[in-house]
Amino acid sequence: MQNNAAIISIGNELLNGHTVNTNSNWLCGRLLTVSIPVIYNCDIGDDIEEIKNAIEYASAKADIILITGGLGPTDDDLTRNGIAEFLNVELEYHPEIEEKIKKFFAARNYLMPEKNKVQAYLPAGTIEIENNLGTAPGIFYKSGKKIIAAMPGVPFEMKQMFDGIILPKLKEISDGDFLVVRKIRCIGAGESTIAEMLGDLMNRDRNPLINCTVDYGIITLHIVAKAKDKKTAETMAQKDVDKLRGILGNLIYGFDEQTLAEVVGQKLLGGKKTLALAESCTGGLIAKMITDVAGSSRYFTYGWVTYSNEAKISELGVEKSLIEQFGAVSGEVSQAMAAGARKKAGSDYAIAVTGIAGPDGGSLSRTFCTGQDTKDSHFNKDISKESLRQDDMLQKVRDEKKPVGLVYISIADEKGVDTEQFLFGHRNRDFIRLRTCQNALNLLRLKLGD
Amino acid sequence: MQNNAAIISIGNELLNGHTVNTNSNWLCGRLLTVSIPVIYNCDIGDDIEEIKNAIEYASAKADIILITGGLGPTDDDLTRNGIAEFLNVELEYHPEIEEKIKKFFAARNYLMPEKNKVQAYLPAGTIEIENNLGTAPGIFYKSGKKIIAAMPGVPFEMKQMFDGIILPKLKEISDGDFLVVRKIRCIGAGESTIAEMLGDLMNRDRNPLINCTVDYGIITLHIVAKAKDKKTAETMAQKDVDKLRGILGNLIYGFDEQTLAEVVGQKLLGGKKTLALAESCTGGLIAKMITDVAGSSRYFTYGWVTYSNEAKISELGVEKSLIEQFGAVSGEVSQAMAAGARKKAGSDYAIAVTGIAGPDGGSLSRTFCTGQDTKDSHFNKDISKESLRQDDMLQKVRDEKKPVGLVYISIADEKGVDTEQFLFGHRNRDFIRLRTCQNALNLLRLKLGD
Repeated sequence: MQNNAAIISIGNELLNGHTVNTNSNWLCGRLLTVSIPVIYNCDIGDDIEEIKNAIEYASAKADIILITGGLGPTDDDLTRNGIAEFLNVELEYHPEIEEKIKKFFAARNYLMPEKNKVQAYLPAGTIEIENNLGTAPGIFYKSGKKIIAAMPGVPFEMKQMFDGIILPKLKEISDGDFLVVRKIRCIGAGESTIAEMLGDLMNRDRNPLINCTVDYGIITLHIVAKAKDKKTAETMAQKDVDKLRGILGNLIYGFDEQTLAEVVGQKLLGGKKTLALAESCTGGLIAKMITDVAGSSRYFTYGWVTYSNEAKISELGVEKSLIEQFGAVSGEVSQAMAAGARKKAGSDYAIAVTGIAGPDGGSLSRTFCTGQDTKDSHFNKDISKESLRQDDMLQKVRDEKKPVGLVYISIADEKGVDTEQFLFGHRNRDFIRLRTCQNALNLLRLKLGD
Repeated sequence: MQNNAAIISIGNELLNGHTVNTNSNWLCGRLLTVSIPVIYNCDIGDDIEEIKNAIEYASAKADIILITGGLGPTDDDLTRNGIAEFLNVELEYHPEIEEKIKKFFAARNYLMPEKNKVQAYLPAGTIEIENNLGTAPGIFYKSGKKIIAAMPGVPFEMKQMFDGIILPKLKEISDGDFLVVRKIRCIGAGESTIAEMLGDLMNRDRNPLINCTVDYGIITLHIVAKAKDKKTAETMAQKDVDKLRGILGNLIYGFDEQTLAEVVGQKLLGGKKTLALAESCTGGLIAKMITDVAGSSRYFTYGWVTYSNEAKISELGVEKSLIEQFGAVSGEVSQAMAAGARKKAGSDYAIAVTGIAGPDGGSLSRTFCTGQDTKDSHFNKDISKESLRQDDMLQKVRDEKKPVGLVYISIADEKGVDTEQFLFGHRNRDFIRLRTCQNALNLLRLKLGD
């Protein structure tokens, strides 16, 4: 039988809405790389009895039990005790662990607080997993095929411990089919549309299995290929990747873990081009996304967050009269921002955005868009780039009468400026800002070509 | 007996590391507002049998079962079927639901894809929960004290459905103790230090119970007060809040859901002050945080992302010689950036940051800091603000020899510029950027006073 795993995440904060559990998700992905499927995750509270019960339940289902959280120094950290209860053993004091904790503090010119001493206790019969990044040691237990590994809840400590010590151990014992997962990242069409384009390829009994997930405007297709050996699984997955490329064309922006900002960055770098950004409603979020990518300083040079009209005028050279005539949220101002940014930065490309992210703003229109389909976003195409060159096109409407979710995105290059209008409907501020960024990066991607 | 709840999240993507489950966390927080404790969350795959088993297990533990995910139109959406299996009933076609779905598409100038017809089926004996934001209707089942409510996995659809329809139903049946949760948000000391300051207040059998969670530099204390009536619970919680204020002083930056950016924004607004930002290594992230706050345009006017030396010189008026002498990552340049931004924006305050977020950069020092304690961050205080006024203080060192994680933060106001040096150790890019932003906002908060 193939090994499988269950993940138990411990902490009251996971059950009272205080903390989103990102650890279990990360561990699932990591376990997949060694073909150990996770059959379930659960979150439970800081309670010895609950911890014991959860381990019992998981132990009946899975060989490998990964636990995160509850190893800290405070009185609500009870994972040590829960494991001891499950194993029916006492906690044992390890002076050598206390020494390490003391050294950890000493290296920072601190004395170890008395509270941290509890971290030097482990259930009898378990061994310490070293923590180089914090004070909480992990706990490792193995008996026959059963493995229990408890790690700190702090993500970077957990990750280093898992990758450095636990994953190599699991690799040795993994004996199942090889799973290879490839991801195809799309933008510009909704989930249903993509599913219809794929047809039978998404059947549930197919191998590779193709799953579909949505994250704001990004649709990800997960191709999960299963075979007796890794190479076969890889070939099967690659075949599907090629098939999907043929079907989805430039709806595909990237593969695997690529972000839109990475893809755009690679294209800029490849063409030795530079980018400037002029953001109003997104308030720095596009710049943040671009600079999330290591090495982005090679193509991203100048960014402006021109949140006020004055900043648009003084920093980007937008004509005051343009703002007065059309309002700050207008295709005309967006266009002038992009042109101004490109000129001032001396860059090859510039993106500008201006819009109403809400919650304040008027309600001229209650039109919605699904937020998943570029075509939907373009239903007002009649006043987009083609017609923006006509001065008399838009009425002089004041910004406060414009609807929340109205956004203009402009891309400037050597040939001029293209501007598109989007209406992201009465969604929340985060949604509108994020979708604006995704569309801005996607417009630049399409402009940069292959 | 008090009602309690279990949450089942469905989707292969939750078990293979593709999607972080934020829904269950949000639902936990919401349930707490009506005093329904969540006893466990679990994530399972898109599999009818697994869904049925999970509902059976949850049903043995909890009266209220909330399910998210698996209601979409694609073949891997099997929640309808799983609930039908659990209830041992057939799926029934509802023409009126199909009509709604068709209308949803028609309003967007689309025909309903054939795939979506499956969403018009519900397990017999259950009723539709209307979805105004998407095509997937929810499923509601009630029998005696048992409630099963299935909602879409798309967060904004799920949230609207829960708050609009399910929460009011749950309010009616909630009969337990009242729980009141207050949160105290701290920055500037680590978890252990704060726990020691609180002492017995963190005992596990205390009511209110005080829990502690860490999110990068932010330490949150959760005060959970339990009483027979809401007013008593509120009074108990407030008493603890006051007690903790006395103990923690200005380590507390805010309460409940307040972010640092919100608190800083309120202080700026209250004092009718404006802010400009000049960011290098954080690449727009401080601006993003500031503008996450609705209404931030009232105090945030100008932002620069000066990722290149040229931008620092041309946009912020940093002397080229300063960069040549001290490097772009230096207290001197940080100081000049802040002064330049404040002057150019005509703002009351300006924040500037420059640093090495990595992964590239030298390795002059392998010094670490815990990233949770401001004091730790200041161990190199000897070359911070006090001494920055001495020109001969820093050697002329080239930036590439400086360690990853070295960051300078400056705050400019009418009196001048204060600059602090931080060393965030060999952590990852995201960590360094986020901690830089938190510290920058915190330095401004402390400067703004009460």
